[in-house]
Amino acid sequence: MRIAIDAMGGDHAPKSTVEGALAAAREWNDTQIILVGDEEVLKPLLVDAPANLVIQHATEVIDAEDEPVKAVRRKKDASMVVAGRLVREGKADAMISSGNTGALMTTGLLVVGRMEGIERPALAPMIPTVDGRGVLALDLGANMDAKPEHLAQYALLGSIYREKVHGINKPRVGLLNVGTEAKKGNELTKAAYPLLEAMPIEFVGNVEARDVLSGACDVLVCDGFAGNILLKSLEGTAGTIFSLLKKEFTKSLKNKLAAAILMPALRSLKGTLDYKEHGGAPLLGLSGLVVKGHGSSDGPAIKNAVRQARTAIQNQLTESISAEISGERVTE
Amino acid sequence: MRIAIDAMGGDHAPKSTVEGALAAAREWNDTQIILVGDEEVLKPLLVDAPANLVIQHATEVIDAEDEPVKAVRRKKDASMVVAGRLVREGKADAMISSGNTGALMTTGLLVVGRMEGIERPALAPMIPTVDGRGVLALDLGANMDAKPEHLAQYALLGSIYREKVHGINKPRVGLLNVGTEAKKGNELTKAAYPLLEAMPIEFVGNVEARDVLSGACDVLVCDGFAGNILLKSLEGTAGTIFSLLKKEFTKSLKNKLAAAILMPALRSLKGTLDYKEHGGAPLLGLSGLVVKGHGSSDGPAIKNAVRQARTAIQNQLTESISAEISGERVTE
Repeated sequence: MRIAIDAMGGDHAPKSTVEGALAAAREWNDTQIILVGDEEVLKPLLVDAPANLVIQHATEVIDAEDEPVKAVRRKKDASMVVAGRLVREGKADAMISSGNTGALMTTGLLVVGRMEGIERPALAPMIPTVDGRGVLALDLGANMDAKPEHLAQYALLGSIYREKVHGINKPRVGLLNVGTEAKKGNELTKAAYPLLEAMPIEFVGNVEARDVLSGACDVLVCDGFAGNILLKSLEGTAGTIFSLLKKEFTKSLKNKLAAAILMPALRSLKGTLDYKEHGGAPLLGLSGLVVKGHGSSDGPAIKNAVRQARTAIQNQLTESISAEISGERVTE
Repeated sequence: MRIAIDAMGGDHAPKSTVEGALAAAREWNDTQIILVGDEEVLKPLLVDAPANLVIQHATEVIDAEDEPVKAVRRKKDASMVVAGRLVREGKADAMISSGNTGALMTTGLLVVGRMEGIERPALAPMIPTVDGRGVLALDLGANMDAKPEHLAQYALLGSIYREKVHGINKPRVGLLNVGTEAKKGNELTKAAYPLLEAMPIEFVGNVEARDVLSGACDVLVCDGFAGNILLKSLEGTAGTIFSLLKKEFTKSLKNKLAAAILMPALRSLKGTLDYKEHGGAPLLGLSGLVVKGHGSSDGPAIKNAVRQARTAIQNQLTESISAEISGERVTE
């Protein structure tokens, strides 16, 4: 299989992407890694590269500050756009980028293209949970508003992803809401509830924000606005508590000594809640596989994203979604 | 002044309400406390009650499980409804209840009545912040969906409350959103932004969920759905982290000893983030003052709610809102 990596995307690119690409190419020799970016920059970094690692030259770069749609339309030779084109043309089975999220979603839509029957692709990162399973939340992309039908499709996309990539049998799908009763919610979630009930998924009903971390479901469906509020609130609260702990624990020598003993426990706790440990976020509903790495991805994170893409390709994620969606339309 | 307390509302009522009422009546002898509830139940509990504490008999009780609108309409002699009627009829300057939230909002709307010019009253609890100032968030009531104009009115209501009750000069009002730039957001927040800019308030723009705890604003404006996701997510994350900490800190004897040393620090941190410490939530936009105590309120919490109501009455909260709203309409 062939996996394209946007070599120029991410805070630590191209160092991180080259490191990740090298490690991945060495580990999986059945996989061709296509590093997309400026050949002159990349070549000197690729010392002792294995034969299954190749460069696809691309002259331009989309920056974090670029306006997504304009950048994708104008920078036709940007590493991200070229990687997307490889997927569309069947020259790569998947692409990975840790660059500008909005631009990557645009690349997915305009370059890779939507899967037939999908109204709106969704970005689906994992949110950590206490039990370590994590929950796939979607949509956390650029679309803030959603219609009930979109939420129903997100549910299906997320469910198939969890089954195919994480090997979960009958993933439990929950709807982010303000109460567990079916009639609870705003206009959107109240209208979405019966649609989710009718989908060929294991719908476990509404899930409250406070139960997400406890692992109340495997897939959490929400619109982009609510998903952002949830995720940023989790991150903000965890970050605040850890910084307050640090402050309290360094207040006195006595506290410092006690805190030193507990440091491994604190680190393990911090790791449990670190969403960056959970790999890249797939962009679901496209005609090919696109994985969004975290902006701060390092080499191991990029390699992990390759692992994730390999699993998805091996288990025919895109084909399974397509079959389910067209089947769904047939029965309508 | 006269403050009515729904003696039968709350998890620990009437013990908590009687305790709070007694303490309040003893501390403020310029205030008449009207305990509303079943005389036969209340009288034996009122030993040595001061003269400024009186009972208003009410035969019925609205339970936590009651359907709000039905309960308020049918139980005309419920303690909550009777307390609301005292406010509407000018026999009390404020009412306090820790009972069924939905029923209290209904009592506010149907019994106390909306203030003229207010489209929709809002429930405004305090969310704790790291700097100890807290942020007043509204709406966190029963209305899940809001229109841009509602958010603009919430902003004004919250701003006046923070000024009159908490003595904050020019409270900073933020709009809960997914990014700080003005053009960010869903349809609702994008439409609300210019309306908030035009209000006679200190609008500081969009505030992301992750910055709420740091105290990015004094008043946070949101629809009921987003507010619920934010608040429950804060609570859930904090609760999860503290329970994980407890688990890690009791794993070994060494850890237990170290944790014992840090216990005061942990307790102080937990207190900082406990929203229950921040008093009752006002229901803003009614023709009289209604304060919602937390369901688990104890005696001191009820007394605190009385303190809060006193400050609001002394500083003419309701009159100030009314003047601002009618002034606003004149200039339109």
